[in-house]
Amino acid sequence: MKKKLAILGSTGSIGTQALEVVDNLPDDFKVVALTTNTKIDLLREQIKKYDPEYVVVGDRGKRAELEKGIVGRTQILSSIEELIKKSDVDLILNALSGVAGIVPTLEAVKAGIDVALANKESLVAAGDIIMKLARENKVNIYPVDSEHSAIWQCLRGEKEKEIKKIIITCSGGPFRGKKLAELADITLKQALDHPTWKMGGKITIDSSTLMNKGLEVIEAYQLFDVTPEQIEVVVHPQSIIHSAVEFADGSIKAQLGPHDMRIAIQYALTYPAHKRSPAEDFSLTETARLDFEEPDLKAFPCLAYAFAALEAGGTMPAVVNAANEAAVMLFLDGKIKYLDIPRLIKEAMDKHEVVAEPTFEQIMAASEWAGKIVVG
Amino acid sequence: MKKKLAILGSTGSIGTQALEVVDNLPDDFKVVALTTNTKIDLLREQIKKYDPEYVVVGDRGKRAELEKGIVGRTQILSSIEELIKKSDVDLILNALSGVAGIVPTLEAVKAGIDVALANKESLVAAGDIIMKLARENKVNIYPVDSEHSAIWQCLRGEKEKEIKKIIITCSGGPFRGKKLAELADITLKQALDHPTWKMGGKITIDSSTLMNKGLEVIEAYQLFDVTPEQIEVVVHPQSIIHSAVEFADGSIKAQLGPHDMRIAIQYALTYPAHKRSPAEDFSLTETARLDFEEPDLKAFPCLAYAFAALEAGGTMPAVVNAANEAAVMLFLDGKIKYLDIPRLIKEAMDKHEVVAEPTFEQIMAASEWAGKIVVG
Repeated sequence: MKKKLAILGSTGSIGTQALEVVDNLPDDFKVVALTTNTKIDLLREQIKKYDPEYVVVGDRGKRAELEKGIVGRTQILSSIEELIKKSDVDLILNALSGVAGIVPTLEAVKAGIDVALANKESLVAAGDIIMKLARENKVNIYPVDSEHSAIWQCLRGEKEKEIKKIIITCSGGPFRGKKLAELADITLKQALDHPTWKMGGKITIDSSTLMNKGLEVIEAYQLFDVTPEQIEVVVHPQSIIHSAVEFADGSIKAQLGPHDMRIAIQYALTYPAHKRSPAEDFSLTETARLDFEEPDLKAFPCLAYAFAALEAGGTMPAVVNAANEAAVMLFLDGKIKYLDIPRLIKEAMDKHEVVAEPTFEQIMAASEWAGKIVVG
Repeated sequence: MKKKLAILGSTGSIGTQALEVVDNLPDDFKVVALTTNTKIDLLREQIKKYDPEYVVVGDRGKRAELEKGIVGRTQILSSIEELIKKSDVDLILNALSGVAGIVPTLEAVKAGIDVALANKESLVAAGDIIMKLARENKVNIYPVDSEHSAIWQCLRGEKEKEIKKIIITCSGGPFRGKKLAELADITLKQALDHPTWKMGGKITIDSSTLMNKGLEVIEAYQLFDVTPEQIEVVVHPQSIIHSAVEFADGSIKAQLGPHDMRIAIQYALTYPAHKRSPAEDFSLTETARLDFEEPDLKAFPCLAYAFAALEAGGTMPAVVNAANEAAVMLFLDGKIKYLDIPRLIKEAMDKHEVVAEPTFEQIMAASEWAGKIVVG
């Protein structure tokens, strides 16, 4: 029987790659719902190809535009919450970007629907609440990020209490090896040129500051049964080893492969099965060499801020996440300099009064507060 | 409850390291039986420390010598077969060297006792028979070799039918990079100087010719549900990745760690648990760099011979194994030159008339025949 799938953010990088996975396994999936914020031209093509029951268009103007030309059975809804309430799906792929992805994850978990989670912010900001609810509702959260997918794969068949540490690899970004002073005059163009993965603007900047890795550390803490001290970040420029787990006996398992997100996306969709994938054959001998080094926390303080936020707990991870999101948007808009990103995050952290064990509303309020503090 | 353990070859490299594992987990194991061929001084110390019910001394003269001085309850037996019949153990670690290890594995499997298998020859020569009997008797064969342990660990929780290929890593030995002509004048001393692992003479020579890897390929074929075409050997000089498995979707899992055989030995003894081990902490960033290259089958034809033996099947793997064992002994005794090893193996293979689906007796006869052909 085909797995009924909703793809939130189907016109983005992860969303379109997920549809390639679906194309490659036509007997495995039925695409029931798709969503975009503004990209209705691509969504129109996707509607034609996949004939979903529902689509959501976030932007009101674009939604009205799509409604004019629609043919066929597909219903256009105005919110993902409505979609989750109406549709009957087996799995929701949450490939939304940023803070906007948090509520949909929460709603899916409330509705008892398994989530393939590509939206980092859900667990970074509201991980305590979402994971608790997922356990209560027996909802599975399948990671899509290559790092968390790697850890999850390494833990297959294993006991989490036998973990000694998890090792999250990090490409080091385009500025690996540079000292803090050398980063002062980094331009937007330089920061957008990531050496290995092709991704959206926000995540590419996050990769260059190592905040992306910081957010992954917080996410890993939520997904797996480890303390912050059990999480190690290792710089690995080739990004072939996607992450690893060391067990109590010193045995390390790593998951590796080519730079093709479709493998991790597919695994989250087909789990527990490994099926043929659209990824090209990979050869270790062609790769030839893998390097490892420690991250430079002086040049890339964002990674240290993420660990500090995890230690502080409560609303602090949400604040770091939202402050970073706001600062990166300012940088992408050309309004601040590169090193203003960590500076503004640090300022928000210093000003924030942590709420321990916050409600969801308190988390969202802290996020909003942090965004405002940064924008000023 | 303590696991009752018999260690065959307790005075050898694997045997003594297994006892270190036991020392480190005193609540987990009771050593019931130990064996040596000739090293009775060390065995005497082991008897004093572990108070086993039984010991076996293979060499008749040494056995008589040990019998004179024995105190305590330990009974001295003359054969491992007798030991297996008499003793009541949960797990047998077979750390015997060479062809001598085959019958004990077979006897253990017949007796329904799980085997932690460090003796390569058991599965290389008689793998078809032993694995079939193990399945029938529901006996588990736990690999101890670092490569097979790695593959086994990577397959934990996975389905073997979803394997795309297994990747067996290989240090390349001390002569990696040399061409065939450069190997003609290799001395015994040069061949005994392995770059990473400290092992006995036979296995060190096998590592230098890559026959060790060839035997591991045959063993892997027996242990895991793969065809010969699904087995790839990759040269990895640092020997940090101990081996890997690629699944149908292109996802690769690898097991890695320090050069400490005690991790793999312990895992075979404590499976499915990972417990704290005596291994030192390992750091990927201290290791810094991993390299991979294809093996040179022209300079190291033994690896190709092993694949050819696997393709030929029947008695041929036993012949390659026994011919190699005899040739290496001649080299260790200074009686032949380094490149005579592959030459003599090839001659034995060319002369051998394969018996398809052989009985155990036919396998042992073929082994004996091959040894005689080589010695001449």
